[in-house]
Amino acid sequence: MSNTVSSPLYAAIDLGSNSFHMLIVRHIEGSVQTMAKIKRKVRLANGLDKNNQLSQEAMQRGWDCLSLFAERLQDIPTTNIRIVGTAALRSATNVNTFTEKANQILGHTVEIISGEEEAATIYKGVAHTSGGLGRRLVVDIGGASTELIIGKEFEAQALVSLSMGCVTWLDNYFHDRQLTQSNFDTAILAAKATLQPILEKYLHLGWDICVGASGTVQALQEIMLAQGMDEIITLAKLKRLQKQAMMAAHLEELEIDGLTLERALVFPSGLSILIAIFESLDIKAMTLAGGALREGLAYDMIGEMHQSNIRQRTITSIQKRYQVDIEYGNQVASVALKLLEQCGGIHWVSENQAAFLLQSVAELHEIGLSIDFKKGGEHGAYLLQNLDLPGFTRAQKHFLAELTRRYREQLTSLPEQHALSSQSSKRLLRILRLAVLLTHRRSTQLQPKFLLHSNDDSLTLEINQAWLDNNPLTRAELEMEANRQSDIGWPLTITS
Amino acid sequence: MSNTVSSPLYAAIDLGSNSFHMLIVRHIEGSVQTMAKIKRKVRLANGLDKNNQLSQEAMQRGWDCLSLFAERLQDIPTTNIRIVGTAALRSATNVNTFTEKANQILGHTVEIISGEEEAATIYKGVAHTSGGLGRRLVVDIGGASTELIIGKEFEAQALVSLSMGCVTWLDNYFHDRQLTQSNFDTAILAAKATLQPILEKYLHLGWDICVGASGTVQALQEIMLAQGMDEIITLAKLKRLQKQAMMAAHLEELEIDGLTLERALVFPSGLSILIAIFESLDIKAMTLAGGALREGLAYDMIGEMHQSNIRQRTITSIQKRYQVDIEYGNQVASVALKLLEQCGGIHWVSENQAAFLLQSVAELHEIGLSIDFKKGGEHGAYLLQNLDLPGFTRAQKHFLAELTRRYREQLTSLPEQHALSSQSSKRLLRILRLAVLLTHRRSTQLQPKFLLHSNDDSLTLEINQAWLDNNPLTRAELEMEANRQSDIGWPLTITS
Repeated sequence: MSNTVSSPLYAAIDLGSNSFHMLIVRHIEGSVQTMAKIKRKVRLANGLDKNNQLSQEAMQRGWDCLSLFAERLQDIPTTNIRIVGTAALRSATNVNTFTEKANQILGHTVEIISGEEEAATIYKGVAHTSGGLGRRLVVDIGGASTELIIGKEFEAQALVSLSMGCVTWLDNYFHDRQLTQSNFDTAILAAKATLQPILEKYLHLGWDICVGASGTVQALQEIMLAQGMDEIITLAKLKRLQKQAMMAAHLEELEIDGLTLERALVFPSGLSILIAIFESLDIKAMTLAGGALREGLAYDMIGEMHQSNIRQRTITSIQKRYQVDIEYGNQVASVALKLLEQCGGIHWVSENQAAFLLQSVAELHEIGLSIDFKKGGEHGAYLLQNLDLPGFTRAQKHFLAELTRRYREQLTSLPEQHALSSQSSKRLLRILRLAVLLTHRRSTQLQPKFLLHSNDDSLTLEINQAWLDNNPLTRAELEMEANRQSDIGWPLTITS
Repeated sequence: MSNTVSSPLYAAIDLGSNSFHMLIVRHIEGSVQTMAKIKRKVRLANGLDKNNQLSQEAMQRGWDCLSLFAERLQDIPTTNIRIVGTAALRSATNVNTFTEKANQILGHTVEIISGEEEAATIYKGVAHTSGGLGRRLVVDIGGASTELIIGKEFEAQALVSLSMGCVTWLDNYFHDRQLTQSNFDTAILAAKATLQPILEKYLHLGWDICVGASGTVQALQEIMLAQGMDEIITLAKLKRLQKQAMMAAHLEELEIDGLTLERALVFPSGLSILIAIFESLDIKAMTLAGGALREGLAYDMIGEMHQSNIRQRTITSIQKRYQVDIEYGNQVASVALKLLEQCGGIHWVSENQAAFLLQSVAELHEIGLSIDFKKGGEHGAYLLQNLDLPGFTRAQKHFLAELTRRYREQLTSLPEQHALSSQSSKRLLRILRLAVLLTHRRSTQLQPKFLLHSNDDSLTLEINQAWLDNNPLTRAELEMEANRQSDIGWPLTITS
């Protein structure tokens, strides 16, 4: 583990149109670990006049921020640093005045990247941090530009950077700060016009899943969770939020549960753009990405992270970092998947995520032992709830945590969650617990032959009698388990 | 890290006079991780008649328990298993009848160990799991025997196993189940008589710290914590608990806050023995050991764990397991200790533990980053609170956790704790936060010259002006820190 002793740091800096961000990470056992995050609201775009000249004040705000960032950069190898400027700097006619001094302050060169390069990097950041199979549409609404990318695995197949963003749309269509139907209508219409040129190509290519990056989508997600909705963004929910926003006459009076003050100002404009994108591209559902531009820069520098199944990469890394017994995890996963199949689960559990979630939790369920054997399930739940798990959505993390909390000993019913239906989630929990009991010997040679029957909610587990006789501890535990499940209304019988 | 993939298991089984215990562990990065713990109350001692013949029923209870244990043993290499019998089996005249069948059931040989070997193994278990410097007196009150050992580091210098225990003392002196003064007096007197032969030698050898192992001391500790006392066991507290016990006329009515039902039966007898030991040896204070017999067996099999500073071994192992940046931890520790010295802390902070605790928390404060950067302090506190930290007492763990929770960002005052005085603990927290800020550059070459003055609670931190000018981010953070500390009534000034 010598690589973990002061392993090298990487810095990714993004000089955005609204904020400047610095992300410092290091690479540990196949995971990218955040070491520091600094953000300053510089509002560059705000300092562009109608001739696209950056004002002296705006540049000074930028330079002040960069002298803070510079301090941290001195300790990081030059090859591990990337500093990029985006839309506002792309369009500033006096960009050289800004970058000349910026380079001096930083001791490094600021690259003004093209919209296409920005889009490609965002796509990489999403691909490295988000799950899902098949073709992927990525949407990133920035301060002065919006990127739309279609890609597969780590490869972008179509990309574009459009000149619209939540800051510019605020200035153009909510200049009077009125949250009226007509302001929204105009903002949405303008966004649709901006999208028009790419529609044919994008609709023709198509996609299987849609992922949103950036602050607007994150703010939406937080509002939805604060209001008790699930994490899937749909047009219906966006419309509902627009209505909520319109209850306030004035932008300054905007109050929506879960919306932070910081985000409120650019929320209506960002929402308008997102509604236009949903309507124009007929998007059914969108989830939040685990990262975007800065993460794309960081993963790109680190390299060696190209494994196309992000969720499997995450599981492997977590197993290593928390010293999970990997062979045993595989054994439990294989027993659990067999049990699921035997009880007609693949058919019964309609959601296609179920099998993968069952496999994931089986591979990770002992993670809490790395903290302490006592309350191992609780500790595991704490870790899964709080760890960054690229490839898993928030609801899926929550679900893995709740299953892990209950993998052994006392059984309580599951809380409400949004990863799977309550029927499926209950079935997966019951199967996980049985798989753990059947593999107590921690060796595939020593595990029994078994057959799980289901009749609606009633489960019957059939095990070879001779094996039960030779394994009295497991037999006693299985009998206790039958009582535990039956006691909370989930009938389970053990037979031979 | 290939050693963590199914690293070999070790089993330590202890056939005690009251309970049989099985402990299964593995060795991970210099830590011993518990994988399973099984306990069955077999009450062997209870089955000894006056001729020291074990009854058939008692033996059957033992064999039944062993067939459960046997199941798990099959998967563990023979060289990684140790099964020992103690006092009740030592004294049973028909012990061979018992062990013959036991060996058959287990597929391994039960060793009946002598009292001296038991004492030596207990000492090893304590030495590997408990902190403290100098000569150590270890007290372990079992069901039918009590071990007293004096040793230094891993070496026992005097050891004895006396024929008294909480089960035999219950039978002999609380047979009528009455919690009267006279029963207590007789039990204590009998214990003192049993101790008499060793007193001279033990008092002559002397010790610096005293550690208690076994269930009686653990029950005491739990009662004390439940009643809001600190974790140091003293004679005064034992007497207070005796009085509380005597409020119940009858053993079956015994109700003491924090005393579990399971422990209640042997609590008065164990307490009597402990009072006798405290009085005969004039013990001032005792803390709870992190392990005893089973841990001694396990550490012995694992070997390669002999580092005499248990607390340093624990810190190093935790740093590795949680991928802490070790060099940086050392840097923060060295700055923190220097700050402590500059402000007269070594003199001012009278407790001799303070400097070591400050060093420990400095070396571990970033542990929470292994979970997530966001709420890193909270995550670190969770880990330190719940990890097994051999060498640190419960109060010290709690203290390290509370400091780690507050190492950066928002500052709140510390909750009540028992590791250090509130004055000292506050001083250590303030110093930790300053040390973290002064080392933000994560390089000893880039850290400033500094001088910390203290005038009672007012601190003044003097830093070279040129350095501050070159490090505007740190300067801003130090100014914010001065406000944060001052805002909660801890005046701090930054000057140059």
